[in-house]
Amino acid sequence: MYTKKIQQHSARTQFSTHSTTGTGNLKLIPLGGLGEVGRNMMLLEYNEAILIIDVGFRMPEEDMLGIDFIVPNISYLKGKQKNIVGIVFTHGHYDHIGAFPYVFKDIWTPGLQIFASPLTRGIILKRQEDFSGQPPLKITQVKDGSRVKLGPFQVEFFRQNHNIPDNLGLFIETPVGNIINTSDFKFDPTPVNDLPTNFQKLEGFARRKVMLLMSDSTGAEQENHSLSEKTIEKNLEEIFQHSSGRIIAATFASLINRIQQIISLSEKYKRKVIIEGYSMKNNVEIGNLLGFIKFKKETIIKAKEIDNYPDSRITIMCTGAQGEGSAVLMRITQKEHPFIRLKKGDSVILSSSVIPGNERTVQILKDDILRQGTKVFHYKMMDIHAGGHAQQEELKQMIRIIKPTFFIPIHGQYSMLAAHAELAKEVGVPEKNILIAENGQIISLNQKRIAVERLVVPSNYVMVDGLGIGDVGDVVLRDRQMLAEDGMFVIVVVVDRQTGKVKGSPDIISRGFIYLRESKGLLNETRKKVIEIVNKTAGSGGAVNWIYIKDEMRNKIGQFFFTKTHRRPMILPVVIEV
Amino acid sequence: MYTKKIQQHSARTQFSTHSTTGTGNLKLIPLGGLGEVGRNMMLLEYNEAILIIDVGFRMPEEDMLGIDFIVPNISYLKGKQKNIVGIVFTHGHYDHIGAFPYVFKDIWTPGLQIFASPLTRGIILKRQEDFSGQPPLKITQVKDGSRVKLGPFQVEFFRQNHNIPDNLGLFIETPVGNIINTSDFKFDPTPVNDLPTNFQKLEGFARRKVMLLMSDSTGAEQENHSLSEKTIEKNLEEIFQHSSGRIIAATFASLINRIQQIISLSEKYKRKVIIEGYSMKNNVEIGNLLGFIKFKKETIIKAKEIDNYPDSRITIMCTGAQGEGSAVLMRITQKEHPFIRLKKGDSVILSSSVIPGNERTVQILKDDILRQGTKVFHYKMMDIHAGGHAQQEELKQMIRIIKPTFFIPIHGQYSMLAAHAELAKEVGVPEKNILIAENGQIISLNQKRIAVERLVVPSNYVMVDGLGIGDVGDVVLRDRQMLAEDGMFVIVVVVDRQTGKVKGSPDIISRGFIYLRESKGLLNETRKKVIEIVNKTAGSGGAVNWIYIKDEMRNKIGQFFFTKTHRRPMILPVVIEV
Repeated sequence: MYTKKIQQHSARTQFSTHSTTGTGNLKLIPLGGLGEVGRNMMLLEYNEAILIIDVGFRMPEEDMLGIDFIVPNISYLKGKQKNIVGIVFTHGHYDHIGAFPYVFKDIWTPGLQIFASPLTRGIILKRQEDFSGQPPLKITQVKDGSRVKLGPFQVEFFRQNHNIPDNLGLFIETPVGNIINTSDFKFDPTPVNDLPTNFQKLEGFARRKVMLLMSDSTGAEQENHSLSEKTIEKNLEEIFQHSSGRIIAATFASLINRIQQIISLSEKYKRKVIIEGYSMKNNVEIGNLLGFIKFKKETIIKAKEIDNYPDSRITIMCTGAQGEGSAVLMRITQKEHPFIRLKKGDSVILSSSVIPGNERTVQILKDDILRQGTKVFHYKMMDIHAGGHAQQEELKQMIRIIKPTFFIPIHGQYSMLAAHAELAKEVGVPEKNILIAENGQIISLNQKRIAVERLVVPSNYVMVDGLGIGDVGDVVLRDRQMLAEDGMFVIVVVVDRQTGKVKGSPDIISRGFIYLRESKGLLNETRKKVIEIVNKTAGSGGAVNWIYIKDEMRNKIGQFFFTKTHRRPMILPVVIEV
Repeated sequence: MYTKKIQQHSARTQFSTHSTTGTGNLKLIPLGGLGEVGRNMMLLEYNEAILIIDVGFRMPEEDMLGIDFIVPNISYLKGKQKNIVGIVFTHGHYDHIGAFPYVFKDIWTPGLQIFASPLTRGIILKRQEDFSGQPPLKITQVKDGSRVKLGPFQVEFFRQNHNIPDNLGLFIETPVGNIINTSDFKFDPTPVNDLPTNFQKLEGFARRKVMLLMSDSTGAEQENHSLSEKTIEKNLEEIFQHSSGRIIAATFASLINRIQQIISLSEKYKRKVIIEGYSMKNNVEIGNLLGFIKFKKETIIKAKEIDNYPDSRITIMCTGAQGEGSAVLMRITQKEHPFIRLKKGDSVILSSSVIPGNERTVQILKDDILRQGTKVFHYKMMDIHAGGHAQQEELKQMIRIIKPTFFIPIHGQYSMLAAHAELAKEVGVPEKNILIAENGQIISLNQKRIAVERLVVPSNYVMVDGLGIGDVGDVVLRDRQMLAEDGMFVIVVVVDRQTGKVKGSPDIISRGFIYLRESKGLLNETRKKVIEIVNKTAGSGGAVNWIYIKDEMRNKIGQFFFTKTHRRPMILPVVIEV
């Protein structure tokens, strides 16, 4: 299947390369992140040279049963590894770096140049330790103001506020004109462990003329201005001021800013901090090592030391604000944590917005915490989480400052891209210069026009399930969905080779369909029907057509089950001749 | 299993009946609706006499694969049918009437008395047509001010505003004191086809002394006051004013008010209305018949007549605002509807709030509509949907008016009940008089105290899957979850009865695990391992222990698969001796 994909695609690229060779056109190819949240990956191609921006993953949809992550389809890059002039990462969130270990060995060549800020680099390198058999990974550190020349592209990095520090936007000079990729961003006048947006720098870019602005759309459906990290800290502080019991703060491990805030407030209010959760511990370690998370050494204690301090002196910081089954907060709530149990007087802070699709799980988590007499604070009650993404007023401000000729909204569901396009129109970008692009499109760009080519590159979901990357396709998923719905029913019939008649009673194995022990009548009827089907066909003389008999079993037994139960289990007949 | 449940429960009831006989205690037994949204059913028991309030269902949780609905467990009522003095229904929403067809024949006795308002009655009777083999159903109509004496209870019905008309609250006189059940409600000064709340009547109840108030908690986490239906109509009207293309309005079939509003606005703006969707058509028919939905006869046209009118004269009203796969709006969006396709200029109105858990589906629906160049209006953009439930200020007002001795929050997730309990405390109900109860508890009540008995009645989920009610239990669900995650793998080994050795090559059937055609190597290795396991054990002399061999296959092949793929398919070995 994979080979086929590559072949298909080669045919396409030959064509599209041919069609633009020597025309001085620049091509943008989004492999992910457009029309979805996450899986951000974008290619810039000029003649042969390819620059890669970010390699992120995303979480699966609800009907993708058993799938761990979805990563970009990189078959467009197969055979073009030597053309890759570099990979640049904007920041350390998994929707921008998460797919890297899954695609690295397929795009690696000796001398491949990779660039990231110190924190982003630290997170990528730490994560790489969990993957074996990878090529040697060297990442060059860059920072605000760094410039690197990569083939026909010159990339200049500039800092942007977000809810993780060390986030870099990109100002890219190309032979055709200048391009800005904002990275995820918000304008934050009072950020944490970071400087506020450098508007003078943005104005400087505008003076150098920006042909194309690609800007983060995640917050484009939200009115007004995003919250400053400072405001969140104030609201969190109120909880600290009024809590006399333990504080249990759950958030994403990747929200380095939030982690810093909780630690700082704990120090201010003389609380020790217990950090629980593998990814949370890792990130605190890296963040601290690189100076992005600061605390006094004696602040952090181990979970088993919890009883050495009064409740009013304890903060527990952990993962699990989304109600994830295996995360620390769930284990605490379910009384499965070795040292920590909820009790009356505790305050639980859920400091992250709810990822769409997780609402039910978070509700159940909240209910379970409240049932134990513990208080719950969550972002719907007060502003204790900022999304990290610019909202409508900031997005318009960015466009007004940059004054780009062309505009492409990036990062987000289609409705977010569409809303962002409306904003661009509002602040004066002509409609014909705004492009709502989709994954896999080839966007061709010169100083005069922006257009989508007729051909596309493969950009379908590549699903990661355990060790398999892309080996679970539609067939396997459809089977899982069918199995999930009504279970399955295996019928094993032993048939006499001579007579073609059934020997003994058919074996039945069924799971997820009905409770077998209470359905003896149904099973006996089924066995009788199976014997009838086989014997009738076998008795008709001539060579036995087993394919026909199996089809008959599937259809007739399927109908029989539907009449009796209104369910449609997957029916799998096995015939054994002896 | 079912018999066992009844026996268990009989033992319990004997005890609890014994413990309260002759004490003049009243018992409340919530069988559903507490700690969850939906499945509302409550019993009032005095000595032997039982009054039932509502028989609703709810939607399954995400991990209840293949389940259609969840209904209350009514095993407490088994053997007590003759004690049921009546069933009263508050209103026609499925979370209050939906489980009725599934439990009716188990609680029916000749002469069973059932009461509902005309619209509620119409909806119940219409739905009953879809169920065969039911006992004869007679429902007595009641209205605002009706009083019925049912054993020791006198029930007085009073109208309450909600987003379906003909909704009735209950004022119940019992030998112990008076009880109010608010039904779902909001205070709406300007309702649709309905009168505003009769506060004087509520004050009258208060003067007669209310021992216990049970009040709707669904909106208890929402600040301020709920929206009036009039406000929604104004906002909807703005869309009608500014639309020159077709308007496609999607909402719940049960939101009779919203349906009336869309029809009224269509008439005002000279649009014909096409009604699409089985349940929507049914409800319009009943609502119109009973006078709760009013329109001119010529307003309603058939879908196939759509081309006889210009776009500006067409409204399509349909189901599917939640992105339900089989509903009309999805079929239109997916280009599967026989007569209707989306086009530029159309305006789609999603006039219902998103049910928790449906957020992703609604997002995908929205994106697909926008991709076709159609405008989308949804409740997050403007107030075009009111939840129908009283919010914090109204809930406090209700408690202030009624001045109950005791307070029990009903209808809602635990977090909503807890928030409602806080509100009751705020307006002066003493904490010891407030009870956050849970399904299955027996709440014992006299003029002096409210308490929860030590024993509980069964109130676990009874799952409806196709024709089966309660036959899918935890085992079947766990199997479905496992099958959904990594699929399954059946190994059929034919073994020589004499030698105990494998004959031929084992048959393999697998679904949902890996793509078999691309995994020949893995399959061959698996076959080899299976033969080794069987032959090794068989060769060890003595009687062959097939149970041991099957366990070996499950364990060893399971480990092998996990090492190779990090997946854990369900492994099902079949051994056939010949």
